[in-house]
Amino acid sequence: MPVQLFGPVQVSDTVEIPERSGTAFTLEQGDTLIVIDPRGEQVADLLAFNAEDVAEIISSGRTFDYAETIYLTTGHELYSNRSRPMLGIIEDTVGRHDFLLTPCSYDTFHHFYPKLQPHRGCFGNLAAALEPYGIAPDMVPTAFNCFMNVPVDGATGKLRVLPPISKAGDHIAFRAHMDLIIGLTACSAPDSNGGTFKPIHYRIERG
Amino acid sequence: MPVQLFGPVQVSDTVEIPERSGTAFTLEQGDTLIVIDPRGEQVADLLAFNAEDVAEIISSGRTFDYAETIYLTTGHELYSNRSRPMLGIIEDTVGRHDFLLTPCSYDTFHHFYPKLQPHRGCFGNLAAALEPYGIAPDMVPTAFNCFMNVPVDGATGKLRVLPPISKAGDHIAFRAHMDLIIGLTACSAPDSNGGTFKPIHYRIERG
Repeated sequence: MPVQLFGPVQVSDTVEIPERSGTAFTLEQGDTLIVIDPRGEQVADLLAFNAEDVAEIISSGRTFDYAETIYLTTGHELYSNRSRPMLGIIEDTVGRHDFLLTPCSYDTFHHFYPKLQPHRGCFGNLAAALEPYGIAPDMVPTAFNCFMNVPVDGATGKLRVLPPISKAGDHIAFRAHMDLIIGLTACSAPDSNGGTFKPIHYRIERG
Repeated sequence: MPVQLFGPVQVSDTVEIPERSGTAFTLEQGDTLIVIDPRGEQVADLLAFNAEDVAEIISSGRTFDYAETIYLTTGHELYSNRSRPMLGIIEDTVGRHDFLLTPCSYDTFHHFYPKLQPHRGCFGNLAAALEPYGIAPDMVPTAFNCFMNVPVDGATGKLRVLPPISKAGDHIAFRAHMDLIIGLTACSAPDSNGGTFKPIHYRIERG
């Protein structure tokens, strides 16, 4: 694809994250990250750390404080533990994501899928991908789970993990408000993905 | 009160946390912490860290994973970021607490109460109280907010901060599953407490 003189510049080609794996990469302030569900009904756990100081971490609690909703979509900002916007959601063709639950892990596999082969899950995949950036496993917080469908019953508080409502080619786009280290997965937990495992695609554009 | 030969042993007298302040203390495995709302309609933000390794921290996301509800009460466990139970809720006379929102802070005061005198809030109070234990401000996660009343609309996801439903003398009791450092506040944010500021009481019993 030729570089455009005006409009977004594509920094990366579309990258595939294979099923049940994860990756980490950097974004510069002003970059746009587009996370794509290429086949539909798949989840991508997303983490963000300040590239200059990895103690500044994406925070579900601060984000809920400011957004005053647990369902985040276009126009919402994802905040850090220092109350600063890290990523703004600028486009969202799905409208249902989760920011309540932590990445699946050996322990959650053991708990929820005792008959399945254990898997290190998104937690293990994120921890391994972020280790070269000096981020320890204990620093992995609640992730922003793109496309994950976790309805909450307002009366009882009970939550359910249902198949995503995303269709093939659906995407969510984030604008980076600071230089960031991003962790991103193609989720490993059967319930999150309607019982199947699929890849996730992403690409980066410079605004 | 005399020491009982059988049954719980009171380790501490009832301690008052003055309005808009916070404290930190240790619990031993097996201790019971009773958090009391002495006047009603007041909130206490609670944090827990493994006393042997403060990188193990209370986790709203892990707790929601295992509890499968956002409203926690008697019988639920509060989990760490390592998927281990830290505190079990063994008694609860209120039945409505919050584990979605982060402690109020200078930044949240600036955002929600621009006309009020800014206050360091529960975040600042917890950070100051936990500093002697080697816990940095960036390590303060989403707190378990005892008595905080944050209903969520299941259809829209919108949340509201309403006055607590706790009455004078209501309490919640936690059993410590490991040696812990606890941070605890009497909340500083007007909306959490029906517009007033009040103390919180607590006491510790050895089981």
